[in-house]
Formats: sequence, structure tokens, C-alpha cells
Amino acid sequence: MVGDAATPVHTIAPLDRAGDGDLSFFAARKYAARFAASRAAVTLVSPALANHPGPPVRVVVERPPDALLTILPRLYVPTARVPEVHPTARIGRGVQLPPDATIDAYAVIGDGVRLGARAWIGSHCVVAAGVTIGDDVRLHPSVTVCSGTQLGDRVAVHAGARLGSDGFGYVFRDGHHAKIPHVGRCLIGDDVEIGANTTIDRGSIDDTVVGAGTKIDNLVHVAHNVRIGRLCLLMAQVGIAGSARIEDGAVLAGQVGVGGHVVIGARATVGGQAGVFGDIPGGETWSGYPARPHRDAIRTQATLSRLPRIYRALERLAAAEERVHGDTRGGTDGAK
Amino acid sequence: MVGDAATPVHTIAPLDRAGDGDLSFFAARKYAARFAASRAAVTLVSPALANHPGPPVRVVVERPPDALLTILPRLYVPTARVPEVHPTARIGRGVQLPPDATIDAYAVIGDGVRLGARAWIGSHCVVAAGVTIGDDVRLHPSVTVCSGTQLGDRVAVHAGARLGSDGFGYVFRDGHHAKIPHVGRCLIGDDVEIGANTTIDRGSIDDTVVGAGTKIDNLVHVAHNVRIGRLCLLMAQVGIAGSARIEDGAVLAGQVGVGGHVVIGARATVGGQAGVFGDIPGGETWSGYPARPHRDAIRTQATLSRLPRIYRALERLAAAEERVHGDTRGGTDGAK
Amino acid sequence: MVGDAATPVHTIAPLDRAGDGDLSFFAARKYAARFAASRAAVTLVSPALANHPGPPVRVVVERPPDALLTILPRLYVPTARVPEVHPTARIGRGVQLPPDATIDAYAVIGDGVRLGARAWIGSHCVVAAGVTIGDDVRLHPSVTVCSGTQLGDRVAVHAGARLGSDGFGYVFRDGHHAKIPHVGRCLIGDDVEIGANTTIDRGSIDDTVVGAGTKIDNLVHVAHNVRIGRLCLLMAQVGIAGSARIEDGAVLAGQVGVGGHVVIGARATVGGQAGVFGDIPGGETWSGYPARPHRDAIRTQATLSRLPRIYRALERLAAAEERVHGDTRGGTDGAK
Repeated sequence: MVGDAATPVHTIAPLDRAGDGDLSFFAARKYAARFAASRAAVTLVSPALANHPGPPVRVVVERPPDALLTILPRLYVPTARVPEVHPTARIGRGVQLPPDATIDAYAVIGDGVRLGARAWIGSHCVVAAGVTIGDDVRLHPSVTVCSGTQLGDRVAVHAGARLGSDGFGYVFRDGHHAKIPHVGRCLIGDDVEIGANTTIDRGSIDDTVVGAGTKIDNLVHVAHNVRIGRLCLLMAQVGIAGSARIEDGAVLAGQVGVGGHVVIGARATVGGQAGVFGDIPGGETWSGYPARPHRDAIRTQATLSRLPRIYRALERLAAAEERVHGDTRGGTDGAK
Repeated sequence: MVGDAATPVHTIAPLDRAGDGDLSFFAARKYAARFAASRAAVTLVSPALANHPGPPVRVVVERPPDALLTILPRLYVPTARVPEVHPTARIGRGVQLPPDATIDAYAVIGDGVRLGARAWIGSHCVVAAGVTIGDDVRLHPSVTVCSGTQLGDRVAVHAGARLGSDGFGYVFRDGHHAKIPHVGRCLIGDDVEIGANTTIDRGSIDDTVVGAGTKIDNLVHVAHNVRIGRLCLLMAQVGIAGSARIEDGAVLAGQVGVGGHVVIGARATVGGQAGVFGDIPGGETWSGYPARPHRDAIRTQATLSRLPRIYRALERLAAAEERVHGDTRGGTDGAK
Repeated sequence: MVGDAATPVHTIAPLDRAGDGDLSFFAARKYAARFAASRAAVTLVSPALANHPGPPVRVVVERPPDALLTILPRLYVPTARVPEVHPTARIGRGVQLPPDATIDAYAVIGDGVRLGARAWIGSHCVVAAGVTIGDDVRLHPSVTVCSGTQLGDRVAVHAGARLGSDGFGYVFRDGHHAKIPHVGRCLIGDDVEIGANTTIDRGSIDDTVVGAGTKIDNLVHVAHNVRIGRLCLLMAQVGIAGSARIEDGAVLAGQVGVGGHVVIGARATVGGQAGVFGDIPGGETWSGYPARPHRDAIRTQATLSRLPRIYRALERLAAAEERVHGDTRGGTDGAK
């Protein structure tokens, strides 16, 4: 700690926006100018940057962003949840409704739904008949949970996500696409978080499964029968086709597409926008379209950018070859 | 039929999850181990796999998945629809509301909407003034149908889809993007199915059209003035830019992007994540970015992976050329 | 003007659909056949096409589509907004509700929300506590506006968009992904339009900002801490990762992906489906995966399609090299 240890802070702000009462952080040299000009009341600073010029009150910590994570919940107390069923909420027959649950305005809870302790169902959510929801689950507004879906404990689902819709499965016969009835389940493990407007289909006959602790960003699509392991990260707009398997701890960057029945091994990492058409072994980093080991993809890309030059060199060589053939065979000047 | 023909089944389950009372199926040799270990009461088995070790009660059928499609509706009777207008539904003036329609809680039906026989409008749907909806249409919860939209018979729309929103059209003048008013229609043919959170814009002056029997997956975007033919399949996260035309029976795999005014011919197939910037002739299979005939794309990809090797070979040749030039011109050893 | 200047028109239609009472336009030679066969009452025609055969009543104007933009609002008067709070709308405590606002059925407005003059909040919208909304803002149905969000004047948000959701930020510790609380804001400038089912996250500590006059299409994802300048165009299904910066007037075509912390300079244009992993200088046009200057991308693509041919040429050269080496070194015929 450098400076007045009694300096009070109430909020957190980035260096360039921080002022009186704001805590900020300085963890990368490239922000030195912002730090120098900052008016933050208190700044968390990495040891290596501790002596940079800037606001006087500093707390030197090994990893400022991590420290911030510890401090944030003290400064920002989330809105208290009031256990209450709003009078406009529609509760079906035989719903298991714990006394400490919160059901917001216009939520619709179908027959036989089971809600865990402290469940918080946001405004305009629709939870279909027979759905099971664990303890401490929060559905933000306008979420749809279709029949056949089960949510574990501490699941958070952001606005507009659709869980357990029918998958996309048809058989072409008699001149039209006949729909395959979807009777499998959509099983969401404990501590899963699901982003806004994401869609996770129910299984056709088998189940769609998302493992415990996995986090899914906005606008992601998870098709029928997909199995996602524990502690995976799926970033925005990822799309996973039917029956693919994503093993524990895999990380898929934004807009990645995974083909049907593909297996992505445990702790594999897939780069942004990659198109995965074949299996990826566990622990590896792949990227590109089609996806291949990242090192190969980089090397191919580098060569690719030299390609026009290669092409010209080749033409020169071809011309030289003509000459050489001429020289070695007939002693002429190589002119055709 | 092998085994006890009187064995009862009530549900369908995959080989590894099936038990007492479950029907399962075994149609691919790679699942032989699962079949061997399965406890399914009855299994549908392909002729070629009929003698594999596994549970004793088997029905040998040519194509087990197709047979399943026939059996499914007998085992899974969908929830019966109760013809009823929920007291919380808001029905506008002059709505044509057949007596056998179902309007769920909190649905909002605008003035002058015409609903066909047995229409089922889910909770929280909003159907704007003047919309026309055919017979046996089902809107799942939270669907928005904007003005200028017409749905044919037997259309199914999954949760959160938005039909008939304004398209994305501006003219830059006087220093800002002036919005082009959208007054075209959004016409959805008979037997179309539309996935969760998909968006289909209305036309600007012309119409946006989706042909009969076409199936559209989740999170798909169809822009203004797009014309999609009959019996097409558009998989998840496909995006189609303005005024493109997708002809009858075309299949677009997941995350495909189609540029504005592009024409994809009848029964063409486009591979996952392909970027289509020019027309595709009918019946062809294209893939890649930019999309090209699949055979070319595969060949290019194969060569691409050999590219670093080519590059090294080329350098070797260039060095050789130096030597050769030296030899043929001056007789030296080619050292520069 | 050619023909009867008193011909009345009431609606606008494309050449092939126009009839009695319809105004149409003919601005590109490739539609000459449609013009010839059209039954439009009046047609706006480009000077260069003024003498093509077609319907007799024509108005020759420099740019028919622009002229149309001027005429459209006269023919299509948008539905009048009735200033009214629907009795089913839920209004929180301390809401600033101007007398001329329109709040549609089942909208939920949280405590302390401030609404500007003539605000129009659609059915089933949820506006969280403390949100600020400017004058003449329109939220179409089922929009969610989360805490920490501020909308400027004349903002239009289409159905199902989610503004101000938590961003996707976790720190892996103690064996799980610990969520980073999101306390930054989501600031939407004046005259911004946001498409259906688009998601814009709030900032983590810093803010997410969309500049005035920027237009965003359907199903776009904007992550936490992203800064988008003024007058940008983001087309459908674009995804922008955390802390990226898109400067004034940049145009991103459909399905473009922008990596975290990337900067896209003012008035840059990025082609459809491009994957942007590094900064793009202002004013340039980039495309491809990974994105590079468009001219390079085109050249690389062109060479790429010649790649199999290059490869074969190279093999021929390699064989020739063998021969040449033989010739120049030993005088033999080069046979191995």
C-alpha cells in the first residue's frame, strides 16, 4: 500500500473514467499514459508497474484483475431477491413451489413443474409442463424452457434463451420432409450459465446434455443429441451440429462451427470462426477452415500470403527451364 | 422377429440407456459394443447386423430409423390441445377467431388478425394487426409476427422466432443513414417449420417468401426480399442477405452465408460455414470460403496443406536455377 | 413525365407484381423484360432507360430508388401511436412516465425507469430498474433492457433484442469458472437502430458503447466493453468480441467476426464472413479468413484456385531439375 490507507472507494471504474471514490487498476504497461492521467482515488497496481507516475494512492498486488474479482462483490451488492409469487404469474396444477421462490410478473409455470429452493423465474418466462429446476436457479426475463428439460442447481439463463426446443430432424419421404418427433431430454448440469438468445434443442431419442460448470455465451446453437462435458466454454455464436461431443474443459471461441457427430477432446481449444469437420484430439489447439492444428494453420496461412510471389517465381523458373533445356540440348539462346 | 413377440415396450431409448419397457435400435456396426451391452427390451436391427450378440428380442427391419419414425407417434402421444382462449389473452377488434383455436396465456392478437381452424397461439406470442394465419398453425411461446406477414397451413414456429421485422435498408444522405420504409410482405408457405430465435424480415417493396414444405432451423437470418423455394432445408445459423434466391429443394448446412442477390439453384447443396458470393448452379454441391464446387474445394484444401512443402521445394529449385544459370552461362559453380 | 399526369397511385410494388393503382420503378437494364411486361400504373424510370418499351405512364428521375424513399412515407402512413398505458402494463415505483408515452400490453417497467417523451414500449418488453430511455424511442415487442442500460433519443429496437445482459467473463480458479460480476453500463446513442434478436452485453467494469446513428441488423452479438463509433453499419449475425473498437462509419458485412481488443478504423469496410484477428486501418477494405486487405485476399484466392496446377508444374520442374543436374554435371541424359 502506497498513500493514504483510509481513502474511501465506493465504485470501480477504468483508469480514464475513474475519479473521486473510484477504485481502478493498472496491470499492463500499454495503459501507462492512462494511469499517468488518471484521477482514480485508489489504484490496484502490478508489482512491475508500481513505480510508474500516476495517482498516489496505490495497492500493489500480484494480479490486479483477480483482486478486483474479490473486491467487486463488496462494492456492488446485487439487487436483493424478494421471495414472492407475483399475482400475475400463472402457476399450473401440481407445481412444486418452494416458499422462498420468486416468480416475476407474467411468468407462466406449467403443470407439474418442480422448482428448487430459492428459484427465481423472471418476467415473461414460460416453463413447460413437467420441467424440473434445481436450487438457486435464475431465469432472466423471457426465457422458454420446453418439456423434457431439467436444470441442475445454480443454473443461470439469460434473457430470451430457448431450452429444449425440438431439434432439426426430418426424413424425406412421399415428397416431403417428414418431421422426426423429438422425445429426448435436454439436461443442463449444475452451475451452467447460458447466454441471451441461445438455443439448446432437446434430444431426438437420446438426450442433449450440458455438463456441470460449463458456460455458454449469447446466440449459441446446440443441436439435438449433443453432449457437452464439464467446465467447457462456448463463446458467442458457436454452432454445434447434431450428436457432436464436446469433452470436459474444451474451449470454443466465437462463431466456431462443429459438424455433426464430431468429437472435440478434453481441454482442446478451437480458434474463432474455425470450421470443425473432423475430430480434434484432447489438449490440442486447432483453428482455421477447415480446422487443423493451429501451428499448421498458421504455417499454411503464412505460405498462403506468399502464394502470389511463389506463382511468379514459378513462372520465372519455367522460363528458365526453357532456356536451360535449350542451352543443354542445343546451345541456342532459349528463345522459343 | 427374433425372441418373444409379446414383449411390451412403452418408450424409446438409445442402446446405452434402454432398459425394461424400452425399444431401441441398432443400425450401424460401430455401435456393436453398445448393442452387446444393451438391456433394451426390444431392438430394431438392420438385416446385416441381425446376428450380432446383444439383447435377444429383435425386430429385423430394412431401415431401423425409418421404422422408428412410424412407431414414435404410437408411443408418444403429444399433449392434447385444449380449444380455449385463455382469459389473459388480449384479442383485438375484428379478429377472425375460429371456435376450435387455442390462445394461451398472455398472447396478444392485434386488430383484424385472421386465424385458421385449430390455430394454436402460445403464451406471450404477439401477432400484429392484419396478420393472416392458416389452419393448424402452431406458434410456440414468445413468437412475434409483425404486420405484413401471412402464414400458410400447418406452419410451426418455435419459441422466440421473429417474422416480418423491418429489413436492414438505409440510404446515406445528409450525413446520416436514412431508413428505407419496409412495406413489403413476409409470406410463409404451407408446412413450413421455423426454428427458435430465427428472424425473417419483411420485404422492402417486394416480398420475402418462404416456399411450402421448407424447414428452417434455429437462429437463421433471412433478409428482406429473399425468395426461398419449396422443400428447402436451412440449418442453424444460416444467414441469407437481401434479395437472394434459394430455389426448390436446396440444402444449406449450418452457418452458411449467402450474399445479396445470389441465386442458389434447385437441389444444390452447400457445405457447412460456406461463404456464397456468387450463383450456384442447380444440383451441384459447393463448399468453402469463398464457396466453389466441392470437388475443387477439397482439391484446393489438399494442395493447401502441402503448400509449405511446395514452398521449400521451390526454394531448392531456385537455388538450383542459380547453379544452372551459372553453369550454362559461365561455367562457374553457381555460387553467387 | 410521360403519359397521363393524373394517373392515381396508392401503393408501391415491384414491376412484376404491380398493377392498377401501383407505382413501380425501373432502374437497371437487366429488368427490361419485367418492365416490358409490367402493368404498373406509373413507373419511375432512370434517364438512360426512359425509352425502353413498357407501361406508358413514366416519371423520369435521376435515381428512382431515392425518389421512392421520398414518396414512400406519403403512400404508407405508419400506424398512429396512441398515447396510452395499457391497463395490463406493470409500472414500477418512481418511474418517470411522460403523459404522451405508449406502454403496450404486458410490458413491465422496473422501479426508477426514466422514459423520454413519446416513448413507445411494445408488448411484453421488460425494462429493468434504473434504465434511462430517451425521447421518441421505440421498443418493438419482447425486448429486454437490463439494468445499467441507457438509450438515447430516437432509438429503435426490434423484437427480441437483449440489451445490457451480463458479458461472458470468467476467471478459472479453485477448479471452476468464477464469474466476473458485470457492473459496467450499456450505452446506446441517439438514432441507433437494433435488429431482432440481437444481443448487446453491458460492460464488465468499463462500458459497452454504441455511437449515434449506428445501425445494427438482426442476430448480431456485441460483447462487453466493445466501443462502436457513430454511423457504423453492422449486418446480420456479425459477432464482436470483448473490448474491440469499431470506429466511426465502419461497415461490417454479414457474419463477420471481430476478435477481442481488435480495432477497426474509421470508414473501414469488412467483407462478409471475414474473420478479423488484427487491427484494420481506417478507410481500407478487408476480407477473407483471416481478414487481409481485399486486394490481397482476391489475389490469394485467385492463386489458390490455380494451386493444383502450380503443384503439377512444380513436379514437372523437379523432374526437369533432375535432368538438368545430370546434363550440366555429367553430360548424361538425366535419367535417374
